[in-house]
Parts: sequence; C-alpha cells; structure tokens
Amino acid sequence: MRQAMERHGIAACIVPSADPHLSEYLPEHWQARVWLSGFTGSAGTLVITAQQTGLWTDSRYFPQAEQQLAGSGIALMKLGVPTVPDYVEWLVEHLQAGDRVAIAGDCVSLKAQREMEQQLGKIGVQLRTDLDLPDQIWSDRPALPQAPITEHAMDYACITRADKLARVRAAMREYGISHHLLSSLDDIAWLTNLRGCDIACNPVFLAHLIISTDAGATLFIEHTKLDDALRAKLKTDGIVVADYGSITTALAKLPAGSSLLFDPARVVCAVAHAIPNQVRCTGAANPTTLFKAIKSDAELEHIREVMRRDGAALAHAFREIEQQLSEGKPLTELDVHRLVYNARATQTDFVGESFATVAAYQANAAMPHYRATRSSHSPLKNRGLLLIDSGGQYLGGTTDITRMLALGPLDAEQKRDATLVLKGMIALTCAHFPRGASGSLVDALARAPLWAYGMDYGHGTGHGVGYFLNVHEGPQSIRPPVPGEVPVPLKPGMISSIEPGLYKPGRYGIRHEILAVVVEAMHSEFGHYHTFEVLTLCPFDRRVLELSLLSADERAWLDNYHAKVYSALSPLLEGTDLAWLSQHCAPLANPTAADQRA
Amino acid sequence: MRQAMERHGIAACIVPSADPHLSEYLPEHWQARVWLSGFTGSAGTLVITAQQTGLWTDSRYFPQAEQQLAGSGIALMKLGVPTVPDYVEWLVEHLQAGDRVAIAGDCVSLKAQREMEQQLGKIGVQLRTDLDLPDQIWSDRPALPQAPITEHAMDYACITRADKLARVRAAMREYGISHHLLSSLDDIAWLTNLRGCDIACNPVFLAHLIISTDAGATLFIEHTKLDDALRAKLKTDGIVVADYGSITTALAKLPAGSSLLFDPARVVCAVAHAIPNQVRCTGAANPTTLFKAIKSDAELEHIREVMRRDGAALAHAFREIEQQLSEGKPLTELDVHRLVYNARATQTDFVGESFATVAAYQANAAMPHYRATRSSHSPLKNRGLLLIDSGGQYLGGTTDITRMLALGPLDAEQKRDATLVLKGMIALTCAHFPRGASGSLVDALARAPLWAYGMDYGHGTGHGVGYFLNVHEGPQSIRPPVPGEVPVPLKPGMISSIEPGLYKPGRYGIRHEILAVVVEAMHSEFGHYHTFEVLTLCPFDRRVLELSLLSADERAWLDNYHAKVYSALSPLLEGTDLAWLSQHCAPLANPTAADQRA
Repeated sequence: MRQAMERHGIAACIVPSADPHLSEYLPEHWQARVWLSGFTGSAGTLVITAQQTGLWTDSRYFPQAEQQLAGSGIALMKLGVPTVPDYVEWLVEHLQAGDRVAIAGDCVSLKAQREMEQQLGKIGVQLRTDLDLPDQIWSDRPALPQAPITEHAMDYACITRADKLARVRAAMREYGISHHLLSSLDDIAWLTNLRGCDIACNPVFLAHLIISTDAGATLFIEHTKLDDALRAKLKTDGIVVADYGSITTALAKLPAGSSLLFDPARVVCAVAHAIPNQVRCTGAANPTTLFKAIKSDAELEHIREVMRRDGAALAHAFREIEQQLSEGKPLTELDVHRLVYNARATQTDFVGESFATVAAYQANAAMPHYRATRSSHSPLKNRGLLLIDSGGQYLGGTTDITRMLALGPLDAEQKRDATLVLKGMIALTCAHFPRGASGSLVDALARAPLWAYGMDYGHGTGHGVGYFLNVHEGPQSIRPPVPGEVPVPLKPGMISSIEPGLYKPGRYGIRHEILAVVVEAMHSEFGHYHTFEVLTLCPFDRRVLELSLLSADERAWLDNYHAKVYSALSPLLEGTDLAWLSQHCAPLANPTAADQRA
Repeated sequence: MRQAMERHGIAACIVPSADPHLSEYLPEHWQARVWLSGFTGSAGTLVITAQQTGLWTDSRYFPQAEQQLAGSGIALMKLGVPTVPDYVEWLVEHLQAGDRVAIAGDCVSLKAQREMEQQLGKIGVQLRTDLDLPDQIWSDRPALPQAPITEHAMDYACITRADKLARVRAAMREYGISHHLLSSLDDIAWLTNLRGCDIACNPVFLAHLIISTDAGATLFIEHTKLDDALRAKLKTDGIVVADYGSITTALAKLPAGSSLLFDPARVVCAVAHAIPNQVRCTGAANPTTLFKAIKSDAELEHIREVMRRDGAALAHAFREIEQQLSEGKPLTELDVHRLVYNARATQTDFVGESFATVAAYQANAAMPHYRATRSSHSPLKNRGLLLIDSGGQYLGGTTDITRMLALGPLDAEQKRDATLVLKGMIALTCAHFPRGASGSLVDALARAPLWAYGMDYGHGTGHGVGYFLNVHEGPQSIRPPVPGEVPVPLKPGMISSIEPGLYKPGRYGIRHEILAVVVEAMHSEFGHYHTFEVLTLCPFDRRVLELSLLSADERAWLDNYHAKVYSALSPLLEGTDLAWLSQHCAPLANPTAADQRA
C-alpha cells in the first residue's frame, strides 16, 4: 500500500468499511479493510500514512480488535473515547498543506466526502476519490457476487411492487421532483419485492434504482441474476433492467430540467458525481426507509407466525444443548452454532441465518460481537454462562434473539448482573411513551437498573429489524441522544430489538434480547401513548436470575410472558422438547418474605 | 403601534420578551410586550402586522394566555404544537419581498438577529433593528431601575472577585483573545461579587463588563448605584466603572488587533454592532456560566444552612395555614403568599423572594405559572389540593421548593396523580448516571411513572439554580433532548431542581419540587457515576399520596428523607411548629397486604 501511495503522491489512504451501497455488511469484493488489517469486525476504518497505520472502531469491537491487531503494528483507535480523535481530526493533526488523501469514491457517501473535504480543505489538504489504491494491489480480490435474484412471493410480500412504487411516486410528487435515485440495497429489495443473496445473511442484491415520476423505473443489476420470466414480470410493473455498471451513464443522461431526489448519506460520491450539474438535486431520506420500517398488519401476522417457528426451533436446540452437556458429551461454541442452525433449518419457510450466530461462553461473551471460529473457540463446561445471539431469515420475517443459558452453577455476581440487565429489558418493554417520542428519549429506562450499580453497556439498546430483510434496519433506533442527529419517532408498526447487556472483560458477558413492535397503548387528554408488544417467543432461563431482585411486577411480567410462550410454542413441540418448554415456562416459585423487600 | 409602523413603512413589528442583557425576567422598562398585549407571562413574543397580531408562548402559559388575551383580538400561537409555525416561519408565510420588519436592537441577541435575517432574507424581507417602535408610542414608559448595588460579603461569596477574574482570564488565554464582553447580569454579579435589585426577585443590576487580559476590567453601570467606598474597592481589584450607556462607545474604541470573546446568544445586536470590524471576534459561552454553575464546597455549606432556615420557615407557614383553616378563618391564595413570605422574612440573612410565590388552589394549579393577584384569586376551602411553589433569596443561597398540601378530602384520582408525580421525582433523585450524562439522558426517568398512565407534563424536569442569584441558571437543565442543542453534562457541584408535575386544566395541578446537587456516587470498572444529594428540607404532605402505589424502596426513601428533615429542622422549631414537623416526618404506617402488590 505504501508503495502504491508513494507512486501516486498520496500522503494518506482511508480504507473504510463500505461498498457502493453503503451497506452495513459487505460482499467480500469490498472487504479491503479486512484484507489489509486482519480485523474482521463489521465496523472499522483503516487509515494509512507513510509512518503510521490506525484502525478506528467502536466499543463493540475493542476487545476483538485488540486481539486481531496484536503484533500488526496497526494502532487501535477507540471511537467514542473522549481523548481519541476521529480519523479526520487525526489526519488534520498529522498532515500538512499540499498533502493529498485518497479514498475510493465507490466506498464513501457524498455527505461524508463533502464533510471530509471541508475539514481537510481548512488545512490545505486535498481529498481524491478517483483513486482506488487497495484495488491496485489486491491481486486476488474476490469477484462481484453473482447469486440469482428471486421474487418475494405476494403471499409473504403482502403489498405489490406496483402499490409500493405508487407510494414512492406520491412522495416524489410532494417533493415536486421528477426522478429518484436509490442505492441502498434493502430499500431496493423492499420496493421491488425481490430478494437475493449477494451479502451473507442479508437477502439483498447489488443494485441501483432510478424511478421517474412518469416514465417507469430502471433497475441496475448484473443481467445474469434475473431469469426471463421475472424480467417480464418486472417490465409489466414498469421496471426495466439495465446493467449494474451503467448507473453512472444513465445518471449522466438525465434530461436537462429534471430534478432528482436522493439521500446524500446513502449514495456514494462516485455515483453522485455522475449527475449533470443542470439537474436540480434534493437531498432527503429515501421515502422507502420509513415505509418499510412500519410493518403492515399482514406483515405482522406473518412475523408472529415466524416467531412461533423460531421459538420452537430454539426450544429444541436449547434442550439439545442441555441434554448433551448433561450426558457428558463434549460441546464447543461451534456445536452450539450448528445445533441452533440445524433446528431453524427444519422450519417451514426458513431461508438462512439473519446474522452469524454469537455463541459465546463465559469470557468470550464479554466481546459483544464475538464469533467462534474453527481456529478459535471455547469448549463448554458444566458451569457458567452461555450467551446465544442468533436469528433467522424466513419468507415471513426476520428474527433476532439473545438468550442466556446457565450451564451449571453461577456465582452471585453473575446472577445479580443477569437480573439487572433483565430488569432494564422489562422496564423498557413495559414502558408507555408519548407519540412522537424517539428511542433516545426512552433509552435510559433500560440502563437505569445497571447505572444504579455503576454499570452500563457501550452499545445501543435497540435497532430496527427488516421483514425478510436486513436484521439491522433504520430509521429508528433506541440509544442515547447523539448531538446533531435528528431523532426519529418510534411509530406504531416499527419493530425494534430491546437488548440491554453487560460486559465484564475477561470474565463474562450478558445480554437479553427480544424483538417488539411499537403499538398504541392508550389515548388520554394528554394525547396518544405507545408501548411495545413483544414478538419474540422463547423462555428466559430462570437459573441465570437472582429472583429476589425482581419486583412483584417484574415477576408477574415474566410469568405472563412464559404463559404466552407456552401457549404459542407447545402445539409445535413434543416429547422432551415439550417437557423442556413446560419446565422453563412454569410460573416462578412464590417469593420468600425476604424477596418481598425488592 | 400600527400608525407608528405605517409612518416608518414597517410591515411587521416583533416585540420580544427581552432586555439588553437577555434576562429571563425583565425590568419594567423593557416590558413592552406586557404593556402592549396584557399577557403577563415571563415568556412570550408579540408580532404585529397591519392586519393581524399574534402572541407566541409555550405550554406553561397556554391557559393563562388564553385568559389574558381573551377579547383582545390577539391570536394565541401555541409554541411546540406541531401545526403552529414559530413567528419567523409565520412572518415568512405572511410577508412578501420588499417588506420590512422591525425589532428593537437592544432586545434581540446577535445570534437571533442573524438567524432571523437569514430566514427573512430568503424571501426578500429586510430586518431593521434600529427602530424601537414600542418606545415611540410608550409615553409613560417606566424609567431604568436605579437601585443601589451592594457587595456580596466574602463570608458568603467564598471566592474573591480577584480570584474569579483570574479564572476568567485563564480561560481567555486559552482562547488566545485579548478582551471579553459580558452582558448577562448573573454572570456579572457572580464575577464581581456585587448584587443589586434592578429586577424583581433577581439580585442583579443592569451592567455590561469588558475584561482585558492584561489591562483591567470596566464595569458599565449607572454611576449613582455605587458608593465611593465600594467603587474604591473595585478599583483595587482592577475594575473601573464607566457609564452604563457608554458600552457601545467603549467597544468602538477597542484597539485594532484586539480580539474579543463573547456569546452571540447573550449579547444584543445593538451592542455587538458597535464592535469595530477589525476586532477579531470569537463566539463561545461565557466561561463564567460554567464556573458559577459548579458550586464550591464552601458555597454548598452555606446552602445547606439556608435550606434548614427555609424549611423551618415553611414548616411554620404550612402549620399556620392548616391551623387557620381548621379554625374556620377565611384564607385566600394571597394569604398563603403572605404567610409564606412572612415566615421566610423572619429568617437570618433573608433578602427577599427568589420568584413570586405560586399559591394555587385546585384548578388554578393547572396553570403551572399561575399567580394570584388582588383582582383574581381563590379562597381556600376545606378540601382539595393547594400547590405552593416558592423560594427565597438569602445571602447564603437561593431556594426553590414546591409542596402540595391537602386541605381536606381528596378524590382517588388526585391522590393517584400526586403519587405518580412523586414516584417520578424519587426515581430521578435516586438515579445514578454515568459521568458526562446530560439532563436530557435522564429526563425520562421522572416521566415514566406518568407515561404509564398516559400522562405527562409540558415543562422541563429541572433547571439550574444560582447562589444568591437567579433562581433559573444555566448551562445545565433536565428536559427531553432538543434537536440541534449540544447537551451539557451534569457535573458534581451543579444544583438542579427536580420538579415533575401534572396539570389537568379546569380541575387541579400537581408538582413536587426539591433542589439537589450532583455528587459522585461511585466509581467502578465502568467509570464514574453521579447521583443527586437532596438539599431541600421540608416534609411531603402524605395526605396527598396513595401510599399503596409506592414500592417498598419508595416508602423507605420517604421515611429516610423525613428523618433527615426532622433532624435538621427540629432544633429550629418549637411548640405547635415542632409538633407539626414531628407529625409530618413520622415514619409511614406499615403497608397493608394489599399495598405489597405495588
């Protein structure tokens, strides 16, 4: 890299985690940062200068990055730590006037490019986006993915692509614009009722889309991905297909006088730069982002059915894990991943994992995004905590659930901590909040029980979830307020995870996670109030809890939840699986007098 | 006004609630908006065009404004209601290119002027700040206040003005600037250890201050306010006095090459425009704002002593109110105000009220900022809720407390609501929160118990409080996140009110309020955690509460608090007052079995 940089007179090269669609998870073709640094976390930016190399990532990945970067000479730069500059600030400190910085133009949003240019420009440093330096040295760079595209059948998709396009065009007319450019893959998949598998666990396909208010829409994909029947169907709905690489040519041909809506944060500058100057651009969030976040009643019915199957699969897998351990069979974290996968795979309409399962035993779970690998994983023992964070893609929805299993005796601190995290999860799940409230307004409710003991977690409390789409979906989220960010209200129909956690490096990690949908709770003279309806159906292992720390209301919540889980899953289970469910869904024992104090 | 507007070719005139120091409460000289509209709330902006007049105010004042504007032809514009534009948006809708808008330049901050100019400029409307139209027609406009300035004696001020000036100059050197302009009155009073009474309840005096890094400081005040001895003392500390009106001349004479720090949101444009172009300006918050917000240990010791006296005074007053009512004496809200005032007035070092007491019976309390007046006030009856929000200025601190008194039977809804508000107050008071957390992060903890019942309050949860200074003080506050605002961390030593409420128009209003100081709670592997130490010492009337709704922890909190109050106040009380205190501070009765459910 440094030779390539010297050849082109580049003082610093930025290698972000990004693709031309600004996806969270990337096709291997765009995993240059992983290839260069060896750090495999989903978020991270590598910055290389002649003397130094730094890798910026967030608190989710600190322990993992420390491990993977050890001995590489790459400095770990911890984002969010007050004394650590972000990488642009760092560049401003380390570069001088006349220096040039390179970043591949197909891996940076127009918005980010503009901001970087402004900051670097102040000290006379130029940003070049026309040089893809990693590409020049990456001789065995993986090819673009070529997986076929399939249709999300109307039985599941619930709304026709024609109706979805009509909604988007109505939004375009409100903006008074003639064309709309989409590069975000989940928006395009949702809008077209198409699914692919170009990115592991995300049923999307590489594409851009241009919608005209009056004259149809063009989908830019690799031609080979689509069969003739589906191509004809799309054409009937007013969508013609063009070559994936021809997006810039098509933009360059936009007629003078046309106007284009796109989200500068969701379109890369290499694409945006193709837009002719005489086209009037309006920057705003893609209308599809809010449309797809709000699930329809029909979609929610499919999701509730999927949750039953997902819960039944997990009941089977968890029973298997417990039984095999009790029989003295040697199990590792990889076996847990396999057992969970296999249990889901037997379910109707199962497509695949929605993300790589986190099966993390004891200290491994202190890394929130730990992944067991062939070369590095732990055997399970008959004690301590096992964290299992997993999810499935089904034709009728996407799941994401974390449960803690007690593999044997736990110490008092583990049980206390697991209970405090659950108290936070229950508090937020049960909360009512006023219409218009954003996730940042309610985030503290999940953290307060941990704060009381001087503890906290470094990640958000909840993310949106797609419908047979990406397991992380915007625009809403539940996390502390971010200065400068416009908060997004939690609206009825939005699905969010609720997943507080606690991580004690070198010792253990805890997370309890459910998916829930925002629903109307009540209406009063003070306005409308929303709350969450829990969608996830799977018991909590009470052996990880210190029940005396739960209030009467929290015990009642658990008992009610378990009754609901038993009623929903028991018809799908039999034999030892059903016995396991029955045992884990039984009402909690009556509290002792000492418990009542809590 | 419309004649004056026509004379000057003005399409719209803005009359804000502001003075040349952008004070929250105003000398009568600058109460043009009250004089013109008849609306006496502390916050409101009047906008007059040839056809229409609107008064913009926030939810605290909706009921009061509706009453006071009734029949005036002035439309009430409810700020914060989604469909209501702010007044600049409204002007943009109602004016056309070429129109001119007037606002007095001594009543608008430089920041607000710039923002308005930008918004109005977009539609070709010009903003004039050189025309004070209300002044032209206000023949009996009150004179500038002329009250004498006194010194805040070192026994109470705790830190010399020389030391405070040295701290400010150190901050100025960090900015690398030569001069600092201050117009905010509490900053100037804190820095100079001087107090005045130009504004009711706020012990400040009209002044500007210019501090040079090297060459002393100049205090711009009415000369007659200062005696020779104090003038000489100031001179010894490097502060010379100049005429109040000469601030613009002095700014105009700033030497070329000098640089000036000031807060564009805290200096009016009429003053800022006097700064020569060749002076380099740095816009930032006044360093004094954070300095004075963080109370020293010595100041906190004075405040704790003041709280004892303030609590003893209220115990006496509340006992008097109860006794006179039980003896059948006719009492009104005005009598309550008088009794509370008189009780405080007997206390050592009492200076005056820190704001006009809110004594609000039943439905009147549904207006959060209700004030009983000679012409409009309620008699008290032997039933229902009395809200008393009051505070004192003492040489050793400023108090602000709200208590609810049950004057007789309450209905179940009143008791439930009063209990829910108290639950929120206790939850936030007891919360731990991480170092760096702002008030917006924890605000929800106080609201969640109300949200659970579909209820909320329209004001913030807490404000900073001065030290023998303004009862509302920045920079910190506890309220929901405001988009675009940079949150201010709650730091140890900061005092905040904690005052959730609930308002049912036409029926009753509830608020419980304490003052508390942010303190270190604990330190763990997760960092430092803060919490609140309650400063206010006065029992809560348990007759307003539905005790079965309180958890065991909440009961324990109340019992502990009352034990602390009794121990602190009992040495200052005797006879019937002491008996009253003893009765109100007794431990709560044991909960019944039914209560334990909560």
